[in-house]
Amino acid sequence: MESLAIVHGEAADISKMMLDLGRRARASARTLALAPPEQKNAALIAAAEFLRGRKAELIEANAQDMAAARAKNLAPAMLDRLLLDDKRIESMAQSLVDIAALPDPVGRVLETFERPNGLRIDRVATPLGVIGVIFESRPNVTADAGALCLKAGNAAILRAGSESFHSSRLIHACLVEGLKAAGLPEDCIVLVPTRDRAAVGEMLAGLGGNVDVIVPRGGKSLVERVQTEARVPVFAHLEGIVHLYVDAEADLAKAEKILLNSKLRRTGICGATETLLVDRAGADRLLAPLVKMLLDAGCEVRGDVATQAIDARVKPASEQDWSTEYLDAIISAKLVDGVQGAIDHIETHGSHHTDGIVTENRAKAEKFQREVDSAIVIHNASTQFADGGEFGFGAEIGIATGRMHARGPVGVAQLTSFKYVVRGDGQTRA
Amino acid sequence: MESLAIVHGEAADISKMMLDLGRRARASARTLALAPPEQKNAALIAAAEFLRGRKAELIEANAQDMAAARAKNLAPAMLDRLLLDDKRIESMAQSLVDIAALPDPVGRVLETFERPNGLRIDRVATPLGVIGVIFESRPNVTADAGALCLKAGNAAILRAGSESFHSSRLIHACLVEGLKAAGLPEDCIVLVPTRDRAAVGEMLAGLGGNVDVIVPRGGKSLVERVQTEARVPVFAHLEGIVHLYVDAEADLAKAEKILLNSKLRRTGICGATETLLVDRAGADRLLAPLVKMLLDAGCEVRGDVATQAIDARVKPASEQDWSTEYLDAIISAKLVDGVQGAIDHIETHGSHHTDGIVTENRAKAEKFQREVDSAIVIHNASTQFADGGEFGFGAEIGIATGRMHARGPVGVAQLTSFKYVVRGDGQTRA
Repeated sequence: MESLAIVHGEAADISKMMLDLGRRARASARTLALAPPEQKNAALIAAAEFLRGRKAELIEANAQDMAAARAKNLAPAMLDRLLLDDKRIESMAQSLVDIAALPDPVGRVLETFERPNGLRIDRVATPLGVIGVIFESRPNVTADAGALCLKAGNAAILRAGSESFHSSRLIHACLVEGLKAAGLPEDCIVLVPTRDRAAVGEMLAGLGGNVDVIVPRGGKSLVERVQTEARVPVFAHLEGIVHLYVDAEADLAKAEKILLNSKLRRTGICGATETLLVDRAGADRLLAPLVKMLLDAGCEVRGDVATQAIDARVKPASEQDWSTEYLDAIISAKLVDGVQGAIDHIETHGSHHTDGIVTENRAKAEKFQREVDSAIVIHNASTQFADGGEFGFGAEIGIATGRMHARGPVGVAQLTSFKYVVRGDGQTRA
Repeated sequence: MESLAIVHGEAADISKMMLDLGRRARASARTLALAPPEQKNAALIAAAEFLRGRKAELIEANAQDMAAARAKNLAPAMLDRLLLDDKRIESMAQSLVDIAALPDPVGRVLETFERPNGLRIDRVATPLGVIGVIFESRPNVTADAGALCLKAGNAAILRAGSESFHSSRLIHACLVEGLKAAGLPEDCIVLVPTRDRAAVGEMLAGLGGNVDVIVPRGGKSLVERVQTEARVPVFAHLEGIVHLYVDAEADLAKAEKILLNSKLRRTGICGATETLLVDRAGADRLLAPLVKMLLDAGCEVRGDVATQAIDARVKPASEQDWSTEYLDAIISAKLVDGVQGAIDHIETHGSHHTDGIVTENRAKAEKFQREVDSAIVIHNASTQFADGGEFGFGAEIGIATGRMHARGPVGVAQLTSFKYVVRGDGQTRA
């Protein structure tokens, strides 16, 4: 299996190898674009079976990655993300089966219109082409990202994090077995066979026109490198500096329930709230119970002067706190002047990801949802609903914070483009 | 009027000036994004009145451009594109009024879905942000491009061709007067106030994050420069190497009518057919009448051996002809092996713009329309329908040949992004 060889070499070799990878993916993309849904689904289901059947090998390969990671003194949280066990392998396999069960996004008629001259025009979903996915340590992303691209008829070039090298290679081998079993070209999903970071640079440069879009999934430094270097379109996945604004006309019980879930259900996901904004006009009624609830639940609160006055456990917030994605049981909190003050704060400090408002006043909710320029704007519900699964998209490859093509949860439908199919009966243009 | 000053200077000055232009456009974009439809329309209608009222000045400014162009010995076709007269100024003004009359693309609910937990999710159209438009000599593009961006709630940074410098400045001044009359920030539409090509480089580099997308409108060399240098997303507008395939099961009379219109209605537009493909199985019946019709209509035909055998006037086609956009009364022609042969030829030589099939066999039409990977695939109608107006989009800023975000005619709706508006009643995530 040539694609699994570990390459160590000079920059020129890597450039040549990556170009070849790009060409192979491109050559497979056309076949895949025209593949019937049943064939793509058969590949996914077969790949799931290979994952299940090679569980012992997977755990062994993962043990190699884990040993190397321990030797490098990786943080416990990182080690946990890297780990594969029986349950995680089963869940990875099941997720391929779930993706197979999604409606096929290719060929959907998105819009139909008829012109006065009798021309009928359908806007029909098509694959995008070749998608480059660059991700970090979690090995299951190899399976998820490959499967989502495949489902949408796109060839995928996957660049796994170097920590998960051996695990990802074997997961990829299972995907390739699935492709072969279904009679699809094995280069529909290629894995970059080197840990050398130069390979990432080659992907960002576009592999000679053989990558149509790059999806980075990882921390701030990866996303920043991608945004600086990419010469091809990127589905930007910036951090989620998520705000929850509690308005003077909020129902307190509802606000408590929503805030607790938004901040603490899981702290490490991008839809977790990082900043609490409370309407100054409702501060007397709202601020103390909300802040004490968070503190009592074990959340560190970094507040402005008013918030500090609530409880001795509140720490002072620095300017930096208003632009920080903690991904931890920490929240920044401050008073703002009504919905306009909340909007101004969010537009200054936010990351255009997800922001929420709690209020019983519909007009204020509408103003907030209209004026906050974020991918997802939520009224009276937890910000943790920022998720493709929760939106009903099935799985997601990430949450896009840019405005081009995809925005918000990127599921299989967002991994497609479209074409116009025009049907006439001899019409000519005047 | 600072924005109209002609700047001659060092690269560092241009960089600084362009960054300032970008910042001003960005600062206006938020106000514009939230502007009600009536205000945007009022600006467009007022601008149309200013264009009409300053007709004499416009003709004078244009005379300066024309004199400079003549001194540079520009080709007659270029001079014609540059010329403004009473009729063209009126048509430019009317096009602003027509754009004002289009439905507002911002705030449209594109999709609505309700989740089992009762969350209601609307996908709502929003502006993209700041659009950079780089175009060549036709001065009316200044008005059209500025108006289309404005209608979709986007700030625009316009870089006009250097030949139309004085004309574009005055047209831009009228747009700015319109913005002011409607109470919108005048930096909603800014014009690059220098002919220096370094300014284009600055735009392609993104003006410090202050350009969200670049729309190039011009010839091959501009588009190539944009594609090589751009660090921001581009709505690619490649050439239209448009094919018309006439199948063995075509109705000859229909094929003649469609071919004549596809090639000769106007030869200089991107939807004009450049290559005729005829099904080998129908050659005896179809090739001679189609080729003779074109020759008799004054069209040069460059053909393969079979086509050359039809008529002494047919010239031999070189390999280069299959990849040439003539934009003239010239066509290349060859036999192919059925619909599959046509698809293979188009996928090898085409530019993914617009391609057509003439056949009475519905299954063959469907295969062609499914497998040809072009923005527009047309059955039994002229390829010259590849046009935003003909699609019912109103005006268009161009035809996108890329697959990201916009594809095919780019009208005001394609100049928008979207956000998800989620409405709940206290829902939290499990």
